[in-house]
Amino acid sequence: MRKISVIGIGAGDPDQLTVQAVEALRRVDVFFLLDKGTEKADLAEARHALLRRHLGDGRSGGGRPYRLVTLDDPERDRAADGAGYPGTVTDWRARRADRIERAFLDELGEDATGAFLVWGDPSLYDSTLAVLDEVLERGAVRFDHEVIPGISSVSALAARHRTGLNRVGAPVQITTGRRLADEGWPEGVDDLVVMLDAHQSFLRHTADDPLIFWGAYVGTTDEILVSGRLSEVAGRIVELRAEARARKGWIMDTYLLRREP
Amino acid sequence: MRKISVIGIGAGDPDQLTVQAVEALRRVDVFFLLDKGTEKADLAEARHALLRRHLGDGRSGGGRPYRLVTLDDPERDRAADGAGYPGTVTDWRARRADRIERAFLDELGEDATGAFLVWGDPSLYDSTLAVLDEVLERGAVRFDHEVIPGISSVSALAARHRTGLNRVGAPVQITTGRRLADEGWPEGVDDLVVMLDAHQSFLRHTADDPLIFWGAYVGTTDEILVSGRLSEVAGRIVELRAEARARKGWIMDTYLLRREP
Ligand SMILES: C[S@@+](CC[C@H](N)C(=O)[O-])C[C@H]1O[C@@H](n2cnc3c(N)ncnc32)[C@H](O)[C@@H]1O
Ligand SMILES: C[S@@+](CC[C@H](N)C(=O)[O-])C[C@H]1O[C@@H](n2cnc3c(N)ncnc32)[C@H](O)[C@@H]1O
Repeated sequence: MRKISVIGIGAGDPDQLTVQAVEALRRVDVFFLLDKGTEKADLAEARHALLRRHLGDGRSGGGRPYRLVTLDDPERDRAADGAGYPGTVTDWRARRADRIERAFLDELGEDATGAFLVWGDPSLYDSTLAVLDEVLERGAVRFDHEVIPGISSVSALAARHRTGLNRVGAPVQITTGRRLADEGWPEGVDDLVVMLDAHQSFLRHTADDPLIFWGAYVGTTDEILVSGRLSEVAGRIVELRAEARARKGWIMDTYLLRREP
Repeated sequence: MRKISVIGIGAGDPDQLTVQAVEALRRVDVFFLLDKGTEKADLAEARHALLRRHLGDGRSGGGRPYRLVTLDDPERDRAADGAGYPGTVTDWRARRADRIERAFLDELGEDATGAFLVWGDPSLYDSTLAVLDEVLERGAVRFDHEVIPGISSVSALAARHRTGLNRVGAPVQITTGRRLADEGWPEGVDDLVVMLDAHQSFLRHTADDPLIFWGAYVGTTDEILVSGRLSEVAGRIVELRAEARARKGWIMDTYLLRREP
């Protein structure tokens, strides 16, 4: 039976791979790399660097050579906004499932082990597990899969700011920038982590004046961190974001908002 | 200046330590271990096993010997319930800050590195960072501290169930059993992770019939996993919990509840 490892590789710091992940890398015959276009070329390069570092000589643990198979990731219709979003993602997943099914059949021997290197932790805003479930459901190719957890950008951000995510006995919610923009601050939580925010939705909340713990490219050499009262630091974050985005062509940032209960 | 590393060690699987955490362990002169009484003796033993494994010969990376200092953790008044809970924790933290301050002054040389080994990830339901902030505020002992993120029990649970925490574009909330019991299912989220649940609060939600992904002692040799429709598996979870608790004397479990939007 084919084996698939879904390996969380952390959110930027190559040392934030677990011992379990390093060992899993060494058992892999074929790495499937999803190429997400030029914008994400840097992230693809980070994955290559990781492999060179842990499997330097082009061989896995057993001395067998490993292979890289780059899958063209289907274009996702990012223009489709609002209510259309989940639907768009569903179509995109179906097309992605096609390519993965094909790749397993063409590139992965019956007893071989394939792997996906997932940014951060596979459980947070990542579609790899859902796509694999879809491939399994179709039934054209059978495989066994395991998931190796990784340090998420959320844990990495909290660590760099040396803060907890929740207060004593209180909940924390992890949400998206879109959601914060569309629905406002959610009921019943005072600690809110925001990911995937292309539109600086925190700017709508300067009136509540929560604390913000913001980080971009956390764990990488480009890391930028800002924290403080939102009213005081929002302007600086906007500037730093624009500057970094112009310089690198893309940005990934996450933040924790914490308001008084 | 004294240095303190707050090191996330993962939630049970000794291989779920990051490379960064292993390297940090090797720089430590004094490990401060908070002894939480007989109930948690197993967790203390897990920490010792980790040190033996990564620093087998009783020396850190530079060949210097390291020391273990066990701090008696002040008793926390667990009987105090409901509204009194945050206050109780605050007192307990103050007493803990006393002991830590004392220990830094007595046991840690001016240029030495101390460390706390934090279960899971230091950002989730752990008081180490808050206590260190309190020690710093008092000003009696100065130190520099860094935080090394760890795999949380939440990431470990999701990985073992091979599931994501959130659905596409949707939020996930992490909360406590007490909170779920007192306030019911929170508004605006359909994916809910519950920790620190001594009272099986999921039993109040069998009517909604969400999916549950439950795990106890995740990542350890005692691991138990159950998933399915809550109405179908709740009884089995209750039995397994009671059995495991009777056998080991303590339990740590976490679950994800997922209801239809
Ligand atoms: C598609 S999600 C993937 C999340 C990933 N699975 C994780 O566990 O962090 C991408 C989002 O993660 C966040 N992110 C990922 N890496 C980051 C980093 N190094 N610094 C800041 N944010 C990051 C950003 O919010 C970005 O929009
Ligand atoms: C005081 S909190 C500490 C959480 C820890 N900082 C983390 O990141 O997982 C203790 C709670 O974590 C959860 N937990 C910790 N380790 C676990 C494990 N191995 N399996 C299941 N739940 C675990 C349980 O809900 C437990 O009540």
